[in-house]
Amino acid sequence: MSMSNASIPVFEIGLNALSALLDKAEAFAEAKRIDPTVLLNARLFPDMFAFARQVQSACDQAKNGSARLAGVDPPRYEDNEKTMAELRTRIAKTVAFLKTLDTKRIDTAADREITFPLGPNNKGQMKGIDYLNHFALPNFYFHLTTAYDILRHCGVEIGKLDFLGAIPMRTT
Amino acid sequence: MSMSNASIPVFEIGLNALSALLDKAEAFAEAKRIDPTVLLNARLFPDMFAFARQVQSACDQAKNGSARLAGVDPPRYEDNEKTMAELRTRIAKTVAFLKTLDTKRIDTAADREITFPLGPNNKGQMKGIDYLNHFALPNFYFHLTTAYDILRHCGVEIGKLDFLGAIPMRTT
Repeated sequence: MSMSNASIPVFEIGLNALSALLDKAEAFAEAKRIDPTVLLNARLFPDMFAFARQVQSACDQAKNGSARLAGVDPPRYEDNEKTMAELRTRIAKTVAFLKTLDTKRIDTAADREITFPLGPNNKGQMKGIDYLNHFALPNFYFHLTTAYDILRHCGVEIGKLDFLGAIPMRTT
Repeated sequence: MSMSNASIPVFEIGLNALSALLDKAEAFAEAKRIDPTVLLNARLFPDMFAFARQVQSACDQAKNGSARLAGVDPPRYEDNEKTMAELRTRIAKTVAFLKTLDTKRIDTAADREITFPLGPNNKGQMKGIDYLNHFALPNFYFHLTTAYDILRHCGVEIGKLDFLGAIPMRTT
């Protein structure tokens, strides 16, 4: 068990699963003759983030969380995706960024103090291990699950295995 | 970083946050003169689990995941909760069970093979570290987030900090 294997592969598997959910959402929209923009703008309540923003946020939690644990400034991505294809590109860009990070640096981050923005005016501070276990991972899963829940709510036929993605599980 | 601190406190903080969400759901129902059963039976799509079952499932993911990593048979809970209070009792029972587990045993589970039921007829098998990172944690967060999302969808006034719960974060 290490800080890097509790983060990088977790984010990668989750983001790749999210990309596959976008494929299914797009196929659903085409089959039902629904403008994909309707799904991109779907939300569970008026003051919650819409689907596209949930996808962007899942990417950002993975990118920012991993970068801060690796001791590098996270790159800033514009939130300008307007299509399923553009969101998949953002996911792919995020996964590619994760692969550039120094896992040895992440593995020594448990006791390092991590400072991060909380909204426009505040900052949060946590030890690296707490930041991973109690901030980066729950926030990542929050947006990943809510993206999934929005698609399910819209009737896209997806299930738990689509959410879990390509996990290293053997079945009998 | 260890197997036990990536699991037990994560589940405890999440379950305690869930218990507080139930308080807010109950207060919301009372204020709006809504039968709390309506919230317990609320769901995001007809073939998804309702709210009460999401809460039971979050408890079970924490209980079963931790027990298997600790090398003990997870106790089986009846799924017979009918009220918010009974669900809070189940959460409290789950948190109390987590405290009985041997964290040293969990810490040596990374390479141990874990076998677990997958639906009524199948079994899954994973190394302990993979079981925690890619099965127990994502499944736990899946049900915790979906419980939250159902309440938000119903209009209960809760936010991200309610979801994160009592995390060890300092803010400035």
